[in-house]
Amino acid sequence: MAHALRLAERGMHTTQPNPRVGCVIARGETVLGTGWHPKAGEPHAEVFALREAGEAARGATAYVTLEPCAHHGRTPPCADALIAAGVSRVVIAHEDPFTEVDGKGIEKLRAAGIHVQTGLMRDAAHELNIGFFSRIQRGLPWVRVKLAMSLDGRTALADGSSKWITGEAARADGQRWRARASAILSGSGTVLADNPQLTVRLPGDAPFVPPLRAIIDTHLRTPAGFHVLDDRAPTVLMHAADAVVPAHLRDVPRTAIRHEEGKGLDLRAALHWLAQHDVNEVHVEAGPVLCGALLAEGLADELLIYVAPVLLGNSARPMLHLPPLDDMASRWKLQTIDRRQVGDDTRLLMRPAA
Amino acid sequence: MAHALRLAERGMHTTQPNPRVGCVIARGETVLGTGWHPKAGEPHAEVFALREAGEAARGATAYVTLEPCAHHGRTPPCADALIAAGVSRVVIAHEDPFTEVDGKGIEKLRAAGIHVQTGLMRDAAHELNIGFFSRIQRGLPWVRVKLAMSLDGRTALADGSSKWITGEAARADGQRWRARASAILSGSGTVLADNPQLTVRLPGDAPFVPPLRAIIDTHLRTPAGFHVLDDRAPTVLMHAADAVVPAHLRDVPRTAIRHEEGKGLDLRAALHWLAQHDVNEVHVEAGPVLCGALLAEGLADELLIYVAPVLLGNSARPMLHLPPLDDMASRWKLQTIDRRQVGDDTRLLMRPAA
Repeated sequence: MAHALRLAERGMHTTQPNPRVGCVIARGETVLGTGWHPKAGEPHAEVFALREAGEAARGATAYVTLEPCAHHGRTPPCADALIAAGVSRVVIAHEDPFTEVDGKGIEKLRAAGIHVQTGLMRDAAHELNIGFFSRIQRGLPWVRVKLAMSLDGRTALADGSSKWITGEAARADGQRWRARASAILSGSGTVLADNPQLTVRLPGDAPFVPPLRAIIDTHLRTPAGFHVLDDRAPTVLMHAADAVVPAHLRDVPRTAIRHEEGKGLDLRAALHWLAQHDVNEVHVEAGPVLCGALLAEGLADELLIYVAPVLLGNSARPMLHLPPLDDMASRWKLQTIDRRQVGDDTRLLMRPAA
Repeated sequence: MAHALRLAERGMHTTQPNPRVGCVIARGETVLGTGWHPKAGEPHAEVFALREAGEAARGATAYVTLEPCAHHGRTPPCADALIAAGVSRVVIAHEDPFTEVDGKGIEKLRAAGIHVQTGLMRDAAHELNIGFFSRIQRGLPWVRVKLAMSLDGRTALADGSSKWITGEAARADGQRWRARASAILSGSGTVLADNPQLTVRLPGDAPFVPPLRAIIDTHLRTPAGFHVLDDRAPTVLMHAADAVVPAHLRDVPRTAIRHEEGKGLDLRAALHWLAQHDVNEVHVEAGPVLCGALLAEGLADELLIYVAPVLLGNSARPMLHLPPLDDMASRWKLQTIDRRQVGDDTRLLMRPAA
């Protein structure tokens, strides 16, 4: 199963909106066939693995990271393919909560007399498609807030300059996290201040599905000619229903999101919209106000933080705007999921503690 | 030598103002005697090791972490003792820069026909007595600024409450760093706000020399009955020459430190005073103003930072007050010396990058 999970990871940047899936057909210690799902519209992992195994698949065991599909989508059901190939046992890491599968793949296999086991390396399989599971099960994408800060929690100088807080290795690493996301979420404040591209730059010609650039632009202030309006990736502007649409934004995809008078857009509604549009993982690269609001509203599922070994001092800009706390007991507690050195910087992956 | 260094560490909390020294007498792989310097006034490491080795020391090798002394201090010269015991070779990790030794121990040994080597594990030997070397060579103690902060670089809520940002393990660890210091430096702001004890609490009855509590109290504002005035550890109040001495502070040790009109005390002068009074390592536990000033003036040699996996938000108090930066190029760059997990918190030991 560890092998199947590693195979699945090869689709990390390309399966969108599908889950990443890997499959190994084996008899004892002997691997007969391997496969992974490369991209939507192409065959599933099981099909590649069965093709490679050929006749040897008969009586063998299939290890698959996600429950095989039971429905005719863009490709025929994998459960049928496994049955037809005559495998005698299927080991599944994680059930597929997608309504058209949701146990039906397992039922179909069992009905055909195949021995089915589930749950092997389930946690790793869940992490692999954490956004897909979130979208199907919660109707919300998995929201990952990326922050680059100094050791004293500052993201920019008082004048807003923030270039190169973190090093080259951290910036390259950040591009890989962008590449695995279905959407990059930012706010008009960041767009106006920095005119960022919010696209993915990977070394060589590594393939990826360009993430949707989702901009919280309540009053549709994005100026003409700004990078987020170019055709290097799709963009959607999320705005208030009463925002006036300027001429240069008439042809730009946009969606009105509800908001209460005097407050910003309803961020939960914005995220729902993204989930409804097949967004699994959202990579947030925004300022302290939007990032802080996502956290304060319980919508930030994890923080991806690059900490540079530098100090900027108390006049520099804070990492997160959060409502003042009444006491220490109400501090935001986090759990460290992963910590590693990336060049001179430290990368932390943290989630709100239960 | 690694063994000798570990032995020396046993004196970490007790040798003040002397350096920590360890010694191993060996022949090939066979250890004949070991010793370490326990405290000022008691014999040096070499004496204990030679006693244990007895006659077997003749023709053996002595590994010693610091150059053996050549002068009659509170104990007779160790160089003489090694010569008298008939060791044939002495391996020294680090020369002793103390004026009364400073190469004289090595000369004496060589003059007696003993083969002397220096520099084995020199860096580790230097770290072991970094404060002692700093005091002798720079006339300044080694200044270690301890900070406990949230992930977003905050040390307390807006109202000043800061209890339990970090966990129990980090607080116990902090006590061990206090114990190895010759002095704990704080400011009157912290004393007035928190009435801290600034003493060492170690588990069991582990011995230590109580560090001097050095308080930057420019205007002699420390109130009567405050913990720093009790007799659980020595205290010195460092104040401006023109400060009026209130009645309750008449018998408290204090020293006037020069300062320029309209500015705080001259911190470099305060540190010089401490070095002149046998302070090797200074452990700073103070507020963001004093800590920031030490860093900004290039007087902080290292930062000992406990980072708790919590967020306090931008209305909470900043970790360090530092002068505003003109551009990112002038950011304070740090080098990570050590990073480890202490309970739920991360402990960082950082030094200003060259």
